[in-house]
Amino acid sequence: MQGKYKALWLNDDEYLEVIDQTKLPFSYETKVLKTTNEVVTAIKDMTVRGAGVIGSVAAFGIYIASKEAYDYEDLKEKARLIRESRPTAVNLMWAVDKMMELLKDSTDLINDAKTHAINLNDDEAKESQKIAEYGCEIIEDILKIKNKKTINILTHCNAGWLAVIDEGTALAPIYEARRRGIDVHVWVDETRPRNQGASLTAWELTKSGVKHTIIADNTGGHLMQIGDVDMVITGADRVSANGDVANKIGTYLKALAAHDNSVPFYVAIPASTFDFDIKNGMRNIPIELRSEDEVKYMRGTDEDGVVREILITPKNSPAINYGFDVTPARLITGLITNKGICEADFDKIEEKFRG
Amino acid sequence: MQGKYKALWLNDDEYLEVIDQTKLPFSYETKVLKTTNEVVTAIKDMTVRGAGVIGSVAAFGIYIASKEAYDYEDLKEKARLIRESRPTAVNLMWAVDKMMELLKDSTDLINDAKTHAINLNDDEAKESQKIAEYGCEIIEDILKIKNKKTINILTHCNAGWLAVIDEGTALAPIYEARRRGIDVHVWVDETRPRNQGASLTAWELTKSGVKHTIIADNTGGHLMQIGDVDMVITGADRVSANGDVANKIGTYLKALAAHDNSVPFYVAIPASTFDFDIKNGMRNIPIELRSEDEVKYMRGTDEDGVVREILITPKNSPAINYGFDVTPARLITGLITNKGICEADFDKIEEKFRG
Repeated sequence: MQGKYKALWLNDDEYLEVIDQTKLPFSYETKVLKTTNEVVTAIKDMTVRGAGVIGSVAAFGIYIASKEAYDYEDLKEKARLIRESRPTAVNLMWAVDKMMELLKDSTDLINDAKTHAINLNDDEAKESQKIAEYGCEIIEDILKIKNKKTINILTHCNAGWLAVIDEGTALAPIYEARRRGIDVHVWVDETRPRNQGASLTAWELTKSGVKHTIIADNTGGHLMQIGDVDMVITGADRVSANGDVANKIGTYLKALAAHDNSVPFYVAIPASTFDFDIKNGMRNIPIELRSEDEVKYMRGTDEDGVVREILITPKNSPAINYGFDVTPARLITGLITNKGICEADFDKIEEKFRG
Repeated sequence: MQGKYKALWLNDDEYLEVIDQTKLPFSYETKVLKTTNEVVTAIKDMTVRGAGVIGSVAAFGIYIASKEAYDYEDLKEKARLIRESRPTAVNLMWAVDKMMELLKDSTDLINDAKTHAINLNDDEAKESQKIAEYGCEIIEDILKIKNKKTINILTHCNAGWLAVIDEGTALAPIYEARRRGIDVHVWVDETRPRNQGASLTAWELTKSGVKHTIIADNTGGHLMQIGDVDMVITGADRVSANGDVANKIGTYLKALAAHDNSVPFYVAIPASTFDFDIKNGMRNIPIELRSEDEVKYMRGTDEDGVVREILITPKNSPAINYGFDVTPARLITGLITNKGICEADFDKIEEKFRG
C-alpha cells in the first residue's frame, strides 16, 4: 500500500515546506517558507493554491510569524498581511482568524501557535478522511449494482491532496478505494482555461499511482453516452443552503450530461463549504471574472523542456473568462461530506448541518 | 458592405491558390498548387481542411491534374491519388468521383475539367447562400420575439468560409445578418483539442469584421444560464436519417445546456450531409479516435512571435481524443439547410429530402 503524499509539512528545522504548484507538472520543486513575507508571497503568487491548502498554509504561517513577533499585537499585524494575501479565499481568512482567536490569551506564542496549527491541520485531515470513507462506500455500492470490476470516475479541476489536506475532497474517495483494493480509473477533465486537471490532477494521480486518462473538457459527454463513465465526483467552492453548487467553470455541463445519461453525479465537500447566507445559489452566488489572458495564453514545455507561455488565439480577438459556474441542486445525486452523504436539498441540508 | 473572403481561388496563371490554414491564426500565407502532387500534399498536411473546402480543392485538383495527364486513363490514376489523400473525407471522394464521371466522354479534358470544377464550386456556393438566407430569417425572428438589438450567437468549431464554399454553413447566416444591418456578436468556443474556434473561427470573424469573443469550451453553459446566449448554430459532419447530428466533440454538451436554458439550438448543413443509410445516429455513426498528442500538445506563438508546440500535461499521463460526438435529435431545435428549415425528425427529413 502506498503512503500518503502531502502538499505541505513542517520540516526538520521547524519551517514550513510546500510543493511549488506553479512548477507542476513540469518539475517537482519545494519551497521553504521561513518568514511571514515568504508565506504571504507564496499565497499571492500561487506557489500554493486550493481552498484547504491555503488555509493550512495560513495556519502554519501564523506559527512562522510568531517566531518573528515581539508580542501578540505585533503578531496581529503580521496576521493581517497573511489574511490579505488573497482577498477572496474564505478558508484563508477563517484559518487566520481562528488562529488569532486561539492565541489571544497565550503566554507562549510560539509553542501554542505550533500546537494550534497542527491541530487545525489534523482537523482538516480528519474531515478529508471522513469524506474518503463515505465516498468510497458509494463507489462500492456502484460496483456492486453494476457488477463491475473497474470503476471509471470522471472529475473536473483539482480537488485532491494538492488542494485540500490531507487527501482532498473529490479525489479522497478514489484514494480510499485504491487502498481497499478497488480497480479505479479516473477521467481527468483538462479544465480549461487554467488546466488544473491536465497539470495538477494528472500529476497528482501519477505520483499516487492511480490509473487515469486526460480528456479535453468537450469529451465527457460522449464518454457518458457510450457508457464509459460510472460516476462523477467534483469538489466545490461554495454550496448554497438549497444545495446549488459553485465550482470550476464547466462543472454544470458535466452535471447536465451525467443527468442525461443516468450517471451518478456527486460533489465532495467539508461541511464548512456551505454558505447558509445564500438561499438560492443559482441566483445569488457571485461568479469571479478573471483575466482573458488565461484563455489566450497557455503554458507548457518546449522540445528542450523549457517552460514557455504561448499565444493560442489571434492577438486582437477578445476573450472572456468566468472562473466558476453554478450547478443547480436538481442535477446533483448527492453531497459527500465529512458528516455523511446528504441530498442537495434545502430541508435535508438544514436538518443535517444546522439541526 | 464588406466583400466576401475565400479559402481558395484560381489565380491569374490558372493555378489553384489556397489559404494555408496550418499557419492560422498566426500568419496569413497562401500556397499555389501547380501539380497533382502539390494538391495531394495540401490535403494530406491539412494546408486545407473543412468538409466543403476539401471537396472544392479536389474538384479544382482534377483540373490541375488534367493539365499533366496524357489522357483520361492517366487522369484517372492522378484522380485516385487525390481521392486517397484523406480516406475519411466523404466530400473529397464525392467531388473526385463526380468530376471523373462528368469527364468520362470529354474530348477536351483541360477545358471541360475547368468548367466542371467551377460549376461544382458555384453549386456549393449557392447552397451556402441559401443556408445564409434561411438561417438569417431565424435570426430576425429571434430578434423580433426578444425585442433586442444585438443577437448573441454561440458556435462550436469552424464552419465558416475557411471550411465550406462560399461562406460556410454555421457562420453563413451570421454573415448574412451582418449584411442586413443586424448587430451580431459571436461567442466562439475555442474547441479543444484542435482549437479550430480559437484559431480559425476567431481569425475568420476578425478578417470579416464580425464582433466576437473567444471562450473556453467550459463557459457556454454559464453564459446560457445568465441569458447571454440567444441562439446556438453549429455545422455537422454527418446527420442520420432520424436527425441525430455528428459534429465536433463537445457539441452535445452545448446542446444539453441550450435545452436546459430554452436557448434555440440550430445545425446548419447542406442537404448532402444527410446519411440516409444510418437510421439511428446515436447508435450507428462511427466516432473517429485521433492521436492523444492533440490533447497533450498545444501550438501557439512565443513572445518573439515564433510558432512553437508545447507539452501541457505530465509527459507520461495518457490522453484520449475522440474527434466527434453525436447530439440526439431531441435536443435540436431545427436543421438549417439549403432547402429550408427542417425539424430534426425522421418523417420530416424523409418528406423534405427524399420525397
